[in-house]
Amino acid sequence: MKVAVVGLGLIGGSFALTLHKKGVVDSIVGVEANPLHAAKALELGIVDSIVTLDEAICCADIIALAVPVDVIPTIAVKLLNRVSDNQIVMDMGSTKEELCDVVSQHPKRSRFVATHPMWGTEFSGPCAARSDAFAYRNVVICESEKSDKDAVKVVSDLYTALGMSVIEMGAEEHDLHAAYVSHISHITSFILSTTVLEKEREEETIFNLAGGGFDSTVRLAKSSAQTWIPIFLQNKYNVLDVLREYIHQLNLFRKALEKDDVQTLREIITKANEIKKVLHKNQ
Amino acid sequence: MKVAVVGLGLIGGSFALTLHKKGVVDSIVGVEANPLHAAKALELGIVDSIVTLDEAICCADIIALAVPVDVIPTIAVKLLNRVSDNQIVMDMGSTKEELCDVVSQHPKRSRFVATHPMWGTEFSGPCAARSDAFAYRNVVICESEKSDKDAVKVVSDLYTALGMSVIEMGAEEHDLHAAYVSHISHITSFILSTTVLEKEREEETIFNLAGGGFDSTVRLAKSSAQTWIPIFLQNKYNVLDVLREYIHQLNLFRKALEKDDVQTLREIITKANEIKKVLHKNQ
Repeated sequence: MKVAVVGLGLIGGSFALTLHKKGVVDSIVGVEANPLHAAKALELGIVDSIVTLDEAICCADIIALAVPVDVIPTIAVKLLNRVSDNQIVMDMGSTKEELCDVVSQHPKRSRFVATHPMWGTEFSGPCAARSDAFAYRNVVICESEKSDKDAVKVVSDLYTALGMSVIEMGAEEHDLHAAYVSHISHITSFILSTTVLEKEREEETIFNLAGGGFDSTVRLAKSSAQTWIPIFLQNKYNVLDVLREYIHQLNLFRKALEKDDVQTLREIITKANEIKKVLHKNQ
Repeated sequence: MKVAVVGLGLIGGSFALTLHKKGVVDSIVGVEANPLHAAKALELGIVDSIVTLDEAICCADIIALAVPVDVIPTIAVKLLNRVSDNQIVMDMGSTKEELCDVVSQHPKRSRFVATHPMWGTEFSGPCAARSDAFAYRNVVICESEKSDKDAVKVVSDLYTALGMSVIEMGAEEHDLHAAYVSHISHITSFILSTTVLEKEREEETIFNLAGGGFDSTVRLAKSSAQTWIPIFLQNKYNVLDVLREYIHQLNLFRKALEKDDVQTLREIITKANEIKKVLHKNQ
């Protein structure tokens, strides 16, 4: 089986590297618009060769899209316009509703598989690719009933070979949940960073005093604007909904602290502690 | 040298364990009001024996306070009332202004050393104690000019033996910076947790979809109310100041997203990315 990965950044690069490592496919080619990233991906052994999108369509059994989510729908349609009934197009993006809507009426819709592997780091580009990515995480496949069974099986088998478990979900449902458990975390980290940089003018002091707690809470603030702005825009209504609730709850905490209201502070923190029960097992 | 540690939770327990491991003191005794914690500390080899506060005053060269910050000032005064000119009282709490104010006029003020080791985890109690704690982190000593030189040297040498670097700072300055780089992170995590638990009623979905990003951002939400409420109250004005700024900046982000204002979103995220430069080196 020959896989083409379009976009050799954190996700696409890690997908290619882990497939290589597991030896589950015969060859992996990459499509990458940035010539520096393309050269780096070759140098790091992420892909066997760099090809054009046209060449990928000619030669690959599966074409996986791992570009920013604002670009995925158009490329997905262009690929579906040209693939055969035996080829599969899949994406690995963080939002699904817009994409699934765009491809919904395409005559080749059934050759498309919409996926979101629930893994990532705050780094980007081919140098961020990791050969230990994805394992023990879940991958969501959206609207699998609109994809051919053989296509879903091939894609599921690839992810399973990487150590992932497959969950099926509607696109709308996916985007709602993704706003809660992924997208909002990035906003809270970005704003923690800008707040601390604004208030704490002495960078040396942040460096000297930051313990492990600050480091982990602000970690996602290193994430790329190019990746995340399109995600926030595509999932705007869900993200705004959870962001408004977050601001509301911060204000409740602020008011309790202003009034020395220990009882309310204790209730909030005790409720927050319940996250222990639902955090990922491997933490 | 004989050390007594008062409070055998995360910080006190880790201090005792790391001192044991490094072999830099002759013996370590513990004072612990919670009998279950006392028994667990003995079982885990954190201390050689459990003693009363009176016994600790009789026998220890250094008495280290690692109890919640609302309790430290009173115990510090009681200890200073009774220690000799050769003994040292130190604390390891996260706030310093209130404490340094309370002890400021004590005739034995110079036998007190106010410290804050910049290390911690989200866990609490003696089972959370780690023998690899503190290394490569900084410890702040506040108002060292009010402590005897020999006392500051002994305390600094202990922390240095644990792999820490000593920074000196005023108490007021410490509390200001601690609000920015430590206390606010805990609030953003607590509220991220309560928001997600409020919006996302299906705990199983959080569990299934949470990637590493959510886990790390919400990690501190597991922290104990008993430790953190006294810290927020003692550092109330600094914490409220940074919290108000945080809410303000979140609202700027929210408004930019509402208006699809990509330019402002990009400016915010690019600014946030600057935290890369100042994060702790060992991340």
